[in-house]
Amino acid sequence: MTMQALVLEKTRTLSLRDIVIDERLGARDVRVRIHTVGVCGSDVHYYQHGAIGPFVVREPMVLGHEAAGVVEEVGSGVTTLKVGDRVCMEPGVPDPHGRATRLGLYNLDPAIRFWATPPVHGCLRPYVVHPEAFTFRLPDNVSFGEGAMVEPFAVGLHAASKARIKPGDVAVVLGAGPIGMLTALAALAGGCGRVFITDVKAPKLALAASLGPITPVNVLEASLAQEVSRATGGWGADVVFDAVGLPGSCAEAIGAARPGGCIVMIGMPGAPVPFDVVAAQVKELRIETIFRYAHVFPRALSLMEGRRVDLRPLITDRFAFADSIAAFDFASAMKPMSVKVQIELG
Amino acid sequence: MTMQALVLEKTRTLSLRDIVIDERLGARDVRVRIHTVGVCGSDVHYYQHGAIGPFVVREPMVLGHEAAGVVEEVGSGVTTLKVGDRVCMEPGVPDPHGRATRLGLYNLDPAIRFWATPPVHGCLRPYVVHPEAFTFRLPDNVSFGEGAMVEPFAVGLHAASKARIKPGDVAVVLGAGPIGMLTALAALAGGCGRVFITDVKAPKLALAASLGPITPVNVLEASLAQEVSRATGGWGADVVFDAVGLPGSCAEAIGAARPGGCIVMIGMPGAPVPFDVVAAQVKELRIETIFRYAHVFPRALSLMEGRRVDLRPLITDRFAFADSIAAFDFASAMKPMSVKVQIELG
Amino acid sequence: MTMQALVLEKTRTLSLRDIVIDERLGARDVRVRIHTVGVCGSDVHYYQHGAIGPFVVREPMVLGHEAAGVVEEVGSGVTTLKVGDRVCMEPGVPDPHGRATRLGLYNLDPAIRFWATPPVHGCLRPYVVHPEAFTFRLPDNVSFGEGAMVEPFAVGLHAASKARIKPGDVAVVLGAGPIGMLTALAALAGGCGRVFITDVKAPKLALAASLGPITPVNVLEASLAQEVSRATGGWGADVVFDAVGLPGSCAEAIGAARPGGCIVMIGMPGAPVPFDVVAAQVKELRIETIFRYAHVFPRALSLMEGRRVDLRPLITDRFAFADSIAAFDFASAMKPMSVKVQIELG
Amino acid sequence: MTMQALVLEKTRTLSLRDIVIDERLGARDVRVRIHTVGVCGSDVHYYQHGAIGPFVVREPMVLGHEAAGVVEEVGSGVTTLKVGDRVCMEPGVPDPHGRATRLGLYNLDPAIRFWATPPVHGCLRPYVVHPEAFTFRLPDNVSFGEGAMVEPFAVGLHAASKARIKPGDVAVVLGAGPIGMLTALAALAGGCGRVFITDVKAPKLALAASLGPITPVNVLEASLAQEVSRATGGWGADVVFDAVGLPGSCAEAIGAARPGGCIVMIGMPGAPVPFDVVAAQVKELRIETIFRYAHVFPRALSLMEGRRVDLRPLITDRFAFADSIAAFDFASAMKPMSVKVQIELG
Repeated sequence: MTMQALVLEKTRTLSLRDIVIDERLGARDVRVRIHTVGVCGSDVHYYQHGAIGPFVVREPMVLGHEAAGVVEEVGSGVTTLKVGDRVCMEPGVPDPHGRATRLGLYNLDPAIRFWATPPVHGCLRPYVVHPEAFTFRLPDNVSFGEGAMVEPFAVGLHAASKARIKPGDVAVVLGAGPIGMLTALAALAGGCGRVFITDVKAPKLALAASLGPITPVNVLEASLAQEVSRATGGWGADVVFDAVGLPGSCAEAIGAARPGGCIVMIGMPGAPVPFDVVAAQVKELRIETIFRYAHVFPRALSLMEGRRVDLRPLITDRFAFADSIAAFDFASAMKPMSVKVQIELG
Repeated sequence: MTMQALVLEKTRTLSLRDIVIDERLGARDVRVRIHTVGVCGSDVHYYQHGAIGPFVVREPMVLGHEAAGVVEEVGSGVTTLKVGDRVCMEPGVPDPHGRATRLGLYNLDPAIRFWATPPVHGCLRPYVVHPEAFTFRLPDNVSFGEGAMVEPFAVGLHAASKARIKPGDVAVVLGAGPIGMLTALAALAGGCGRVFITDVKAPKLALAASLGPITPVNVLEASLAQEVSRATGGWGADVVFDAVGLPGSCAEAIGAARPGGCIVMIGMPGAPVPFDVVAAQVKELRIETIFRYAHVFPRALSLMEGRRVDLRPLITDRFAFADSIAAFDFASAMKPMSVKVQIELG
Repeated sequence: MTMQALVLEKTRTLSLRDIVIDERLGARDVRVRIHTVGVCGSDVHYYQHGAIGPFVVREPMVLGHEAAGVVEEVGSGVTTLKVGDRVCMEPGVPDPHGRATRLGLYNLDPAIRFWATPPVHGCLRPYVVHPEAFTFRLPDNVSFGEGAMVEPFAVGLHAASKARIKPGDVAVVLGAGPIGMLTALAALAGGCGRVFITDVKAPKLALAASLGPITPVNVLEASLAQEVSRATGGWGADVVFDAVGLPGSCAEAIGAARPGGCIVMIGMPGAPVPFDVVAAQVKELRIETIFRYAHVFPRALSLMEGRRVDLRPLITDRFAFADSIAAFDFASAMKPMSVKVQIELG
Repeated sequence: MTMQALVLEKTRTLSLRDIVIDERLGARDVRVRIHTVGVCGSDVHYYQHGAIGPFVVREPMVLGHEAAGVVEEVGSGVTTLKVGDRVCMEPGVPDPHGRATRLGLYNLDPAIRFWATPPVHGCLRPYVVHPEAFTFRLPDNVSFGEGAMVEPFAVGLHAASKARIKPGDVAVVLGAGPIGMLTALAALAGGCGRVFITDVKAPKLALAASLGPITPVNVLEASLAQEVSRATGGWGADVVFDAVGLPGSCAEAIGAARPGGCIVMIGMPGAPVPFDVVAAQVKELRIETIFRYAHVFPRALSLMEGRRVDLRPLITDRFAFADSIAAFDFASAMKPMSVKVQIELG
């Protein structure tokens, strides 16, 4: 099938051009007409650098993995979706027979095929064929734009799940980038009573603070450990989410956590970071690490349907499909007040 | 120390009269001037029946265990509270050396002394002496009335904790009485995306539905299992809270739960109920039971401070301390739209 | 493919006769020559009654679901097994695309196909084709007989997993039948320090007591609650496994458990049983229910390889394949000292 | 009270001399005549270096914290122990009113008083007064020597508890020192099916391999990751215990763990270690840290009573009280085949 798509030809070279995509509709698949696609930091990273760690773009590849659209065709065995359903899609499809998949840990399946991770094409194109099991109907009050936000929100929500939040926990999120903000919202939606968020950029902190009971801490001006200590009677935060992954963030996380607390590592440092094991031991901290997410999309949609979380303030910039390259250039030099760029295929 | 108190003299006989209370301020205690006291179903039950199960009122006893007030004096070893602090109190004080207490399960300590559980006096009186460890400072934006709501809310929040909610879970609450409504709010604050609540009284269901993404199900008119099944694609609810404790509620809970789901038994049936073990087994349900709460008050206050939960709509009726007996008579024949009666000692 | 099999023609009628089995070797399948098959209570029940609950034998069906054998052929995509491997098999194969399966709860998949559950043929025949993912290599020191014990042991081990045993827990097992004994061994292997087991038959209790630190309690002569209370300083058992499923066992389990303890319901009562909710609540008990098992076979084999559990004493009676009908008649009127009957196809 | 004790006067100076100990028997205390005391690495470290991290020996201090003995006197409120009981003692006594203690995390209480941690005297002396709640009766089949092993075993058992072992898990223990060996035994007793243990000294590995299904890996000669991978079909270990705390052990632990596995950090590195966060993330590892132990002594005794664990092979060297200084000099230059040195006060 030939269609127009946003193709990363090689590092720093994008084309909006026709491409042949070989996708056949299986019995348990649906064909979805794409409506909105969000631009993720990883898309921009492939655009700028042509690779993320071991994943190297060697052939032209369609970008995009945060998508919402409309079901246009269903396979013969599909039972839960029908033509016309508004949906969003989980971009990674595992081997159902893999050992990790059978255990429910499908995000850890080494054979997973994930949109816009070389050599798998992404979704910045008019149509995709996708398994029913990884396609989710949008509630009526959830827009396509919000639907395309489910994917990055799922990262924060998976982190919140791993933390095993108890209702009323106090959380800290290190970093007020897109994932940091989404994690703060996920922490609140997941049961936290309040969240401290750190950054060095005042506009980001101001935006974060407007989203709920979120206390900004500008670490250029204040000590996170002191702020949390003061607010918790010297006890510390129940959960600390590291959404930056810098060399110093591990120590910062340990310092802010309470005895018996938990740290969730979301950010991916480029090299090993120093880990003060004894500092963690005297508090008996639990450290969770996450890789993408699993089983989270229906939960995200449930929270969005009931407005327990509102992602709309984070959709800050929209572009038409015809302007996709401009969208990527905009996203490559993002302004402090911009959080999420989306491309609408209309 | 002599003070005026609401005394249950014997079944159906209340006096507002002077009584001598023998309480000394220990090193780790605070003296609190009581401001607001909520009337609980158990208070009313002692008033009407003189006993709850094995707990029989044999001597005159002051009623009340849901209280907020102001610290007036602190013991020599108190470090976290000071005179003038607005506070609420946990009504049960365990033996710190008991085996359950050491494990953190202090609510299960058989030696616990609990306000207004015979023979321990309650808090419908101007002053109480209470351990610092079970006295909690109110955030500035939490009123005394809300402070006195923490105790019943703690029951719902403890149930939500036991359920180990994952963010975005779908919950069912059986029964829209005060505890049912508080549990619905606790489930949402604790991470659920939406809640179904059942009752047979339309006004209660209407009030519940106004509190958030809460879907009322009048079980005189509709089938809970069918409503939940339709909303979840035939899957079922992740968590079912039984806040009624009727003979049929166990079966109703099992029917509404999803495979691998959880039921939390909050209501206390008067006699053993039928339990269809095989129906639970084919879904591998987990059934949690709760007894009061433990470690929940600070969590409740954290959620209230951040307005992740708003208990104010449930404070429906207020009486002056001088009208305490009228308050109990009102609470003994509660109207459908009344949820919580509070007495203000001002 | 035509082969000789033990066929349940109808209630109380068994034949050892040729039957055509339509099984093709898929890419991820193996063909296994059966060596040993254990006789389960459910096989006997189908033989005697022709049905278990809603599962009714309407057509001739091969019996047997506890099997070990040797791989004779492997599909083109098989990577973990090779011809000549000694193996045992998990008898239930779920739909890999089902919702429960994706969550890792494949035992709850309604589309599961389970040997010797109508209308699916069992394994009392020379050959079976089975998915690689549900076929497990036997360690060198594990015999075919022990391999065929993995299936019933898996039930006990799954129960032990659900209990979330902490090392050194004290357990109670209600009932010293085959599943009770296997559960007692699973509890010990899973971390318990000691186990109390109940029954009314002295020979069974004597056998159980010989298997490890297992204290027999003949409930015709002694009170379980008193024995456990005495041994635990009045505290109670951390975990109680109900392997009988009688109307009174729920109350017995609650009575023996400690505050904060756990009950696992293994036995399947024929009708709803009385459940004293308040008695469970004052101890805040957690009640787990199980349905077969999931992800347990490799764990069982690991424990058997290291001799952390020894199932050999429970294989009490062996029959040749030619004597299969005699084996079933023997198992239908089992002696107290017999635990497991196995049929060897040699 | 004046008594003869082993006193650390200052770095490298021990005396066996009279000392005045000011201990009064409270209502919930017992007086214990000490029978056996184990020598711990921390005792030896104080002897050699006069300090461990921030804990500096500034005044003469009695050493020893691994003890068993006989109750000689009981306080007026003691209910669970009587004169003549053989017991072992938990060396740390927390403030029952501390926040961590109330949560059940008493090992994290900053006010804990722990034997032979400056300035608190240890137990290498004829008598100690100790709270009933931290004194545990020895089963009849557990010797004083084994009783004095409960304390170091508790560290391993606490680590095994934190790992949340599922029955049949495969474990790795890094390091075959005393704590490594005790952790390997705790892992098996706690439900593991087999354990890999690493070291660079052949005699230690040989001893470890004799204790159960424990596979030694000499990391001078073989690759741990390869050995584990081969044994687990390329999957990895469910749990890895780091009992060395070297800079490289974090990476070694990550490399040996399976997707979704767990690492428990027991060893205490002297400085921050490199942590490859991304390597942990792609497996979504959980990392637990421990500090001593809590609630473990009764569990250890339960496992010892039922012989689910046998600590006797690890008691390799015994000295009389009069030879205590020689015992410390022996322990300061331990031979490879020596694991635990004990001093008997008989």
